[in-house]
Amino acid sequence: MLRLMIFLLVGTTAFSVHAQSDVPLPSWNDSASKAAIVDFVTRVTSPGSPDFVPVPERIAVFDNDGCLWCEAPLPLQVEYVLAELKRRAPQEPKLAKNEMVQAALKGDFEQLLAGDHHDGLMEIIALTHSGMTTSEFDQQVRDWKDSFHHRRFGHDLKGMTYQPMLEVLAYLRENDFKTFIVSGGGADFMRVVSEELYGIPPEQVVGSTSRTKYELRDGKPVLIKTMDYLFVDDKAGKPVGIHQFIGRRPIACFGNSDGDQAMLEYTTIENPHPSLGVIVHHTDATREFAYDKKPPSSGKLVSALKAAPERGWVVVDMLKDWKQVLVGESD
Amino acid sequence: MLRLMIFLLVGTTAFSVHAQSDVPLPSWNDSASKAAIVDFVTRVTSPGSPDFVPVPERIAVFDNDGCLWCEAPLPLQVEYVLAELKRRAPQEPKLAKNEMVQAALKGDFEQLLAGDHHDGLMEIIALTHSGMTTSEFDQQVRDWKDSFHHRRFGHDLKGMTYQPMLEVLAYLRENDFKTFIVSGGGADFMRVVSEELYGIPPEQVVGSTSRTKYELRDGKPVLIKTMDYLFVDDKAGKPVGIHQFIGRRPIACFGNSDGDQAMLEYTTIENPHPSLGVIVHHTDATREFAYDKKPPSSGKLVSALKAAPERGWVVVDMLKDWKQVLVGESD
Repeated sequence: MLRLMIFLLVGTTAFSVHAQSDVPLPSWNDSASKAAIVDFVTRVTSPGSPDFVPVPERIAVFDNDGCLWCEAPLPLQVEYVLAELKRRAPQEPKLAKNEMVQAALKGDFEQLLAGDHHDGLMEIIALTHSGMTTSEFDQQVRDWKDSFHHRRFGHDLKGMTYQPMLEVLAYLRENDFKTFIVSGGGADFMRVVSEELYGIPPEQVVGSTSRTKYELRDGKPVLIKTMDYLFVDDKAGKPVGIHQFIGRRPIACFGNSDGDQAMLEYTTIENPHPSLGVIVHHTDATREFAYDKKPPSSGKLVSALKAAPERGWVVVDMLKDWKQVLVGESD
Repeated sequence: MLRLMIFLLVGTTAFSVHAQSDVPLPSWNDSASKAAIVDFVTRVTSPGSPDFVPVPERIAVFDNDGCLWCEAPLPLQVEYVLAELKRRAPQEPKLAKNEMVQAALKGDFEQLLAGDHHDGLMEIIALTHSGMTTSEFDQQVRDWKDSFHHRRFGHDLKGMTYQPMLEVLAYLRENDFKTFIVSGGGADFMRVVSEELYGIPPEQVVGSTSRTKYELRDGKPVLIKTMDYLFVDDKAGKPVGIHQFIGRRPIACFGNSDGDQAMLEYTTIENPHPSLGVIVHHTDATREFAYDKKPPSSGKLVSALKAAPERGWVVVDMLKDWKQVLVGESD
């Protein structure tokens, strides 16, 4: 209630000088988007409110690429694949001779994305995401993380996350929400960085997965990564992943592309609890990237954007709604 | 530290009259098993101790059947299958004519378990676990739960859980452990009851799963249960499931059969943190059931029991170590 009062006060008092830390979402302008998020959280957490939701049911899900961190000009996991191939090719002649590896190292994405199933891309993902133990993979991702600099902004990985979305995560957790990532990205990949970047522990990361193989190697338990039983946590796969990994329906869902439409539906249509659907729309070509119909890589936003008004989903305009975009941005 | 002092005091003072609520694990006799559990928890939670484990890494995993609740004479999920077939057969002539359904209703387990893959059992599981929406399935399990009475003890479902294990769950959670079920049972099945019986929320239940299919049915999002991509969370599948669903290595593991041996290994062998492996041994034919080599249904305990001394796993003797077995037991 205090939080609501502060918000209303700030919203109506242009020259308010309240300390930012008292106000939720300080990097958000006082727009309708911010008001909708704060209003929802206030409603579901106010004891006695007809919209009150018990703590265990306060599940919030977030897409990752383009929703919590930048996905342009290439998704960061694709940057990882390219960096790995570049690192390994000089030491592994067989790898270096692979046609798709050569396409990747030349930056020939047309070849990698050819065909309905993007066979080239799948091949270089398999080459960099299977055949090693989970510990070896984790170490490779950590090494990459430590050396990463974004090709346009020069930021490190933390600097590629969205400051306003980190504030949403923190705000929801302060209000006893459990925050989950539900992303098409690889679960093993994201779990290496999710705790440090977002405060989201590995067990709250739902992503694309394939099975590992357990064995005792020289008496020591190892899990070997394979591409078997690949589960792609995207589009209709997102509600499927939410059910399989979380086992209950979220009441808040944040996405940014048509790949998130199914989980936005699953969260907001005929949910017995009040619910919130939010789409982050990339509209800021200066501070980040502007795209929807023609995204730089993945992440087309057409159908979900069209459905938003009817569904009551909040569309966040990054240009207008956010004071700051990337964490790495200098003020 | 206070808890350690209380424990030491109680452990050395035979006529101590401390209130039970101050002492961890009140339904446990002051045996070596109890001491090993309390000692482990004390070591990993004492700040400044070389064995201290940070809170986020305090992951404890528990088998369910025969470890948290009774699995004899039949696993409770099999009781559910039989009850469902019995309920549905009179209304569904096609189902009633199925050969394996008839075997089940006659209690002919020899026929159901014939063959390497137990095709009959798998068939009646498929008939009762797929083809409906997840909401319909949840409701069916809830209805069964409400009408359940155990064939030997007459207890309701809560009464079939082990009082000393509920105390272990509570004790670990008081010490900032996150407690997970990792069971061969169906995740969807266990998630209906896990919060009420164990205080374990659905998102901390790892079990056997198959994929659902997402669709908008009359404009409403539903997930339809299938048997596709079946993942059996047993034996070597348990560390695989732990990795896929939790994404980090547990430091404590409780099991009761050879099906738990792989996750006991994964938890305790060369874990960078101190770790605890516990096997619950069914030795009490009067208060529950006594079995290991020849279990009443599933749950053979031979190989893991043999490995226990070398691996340093604690073997709990239910007859000697537990003052009370089932929650439903009268004192």
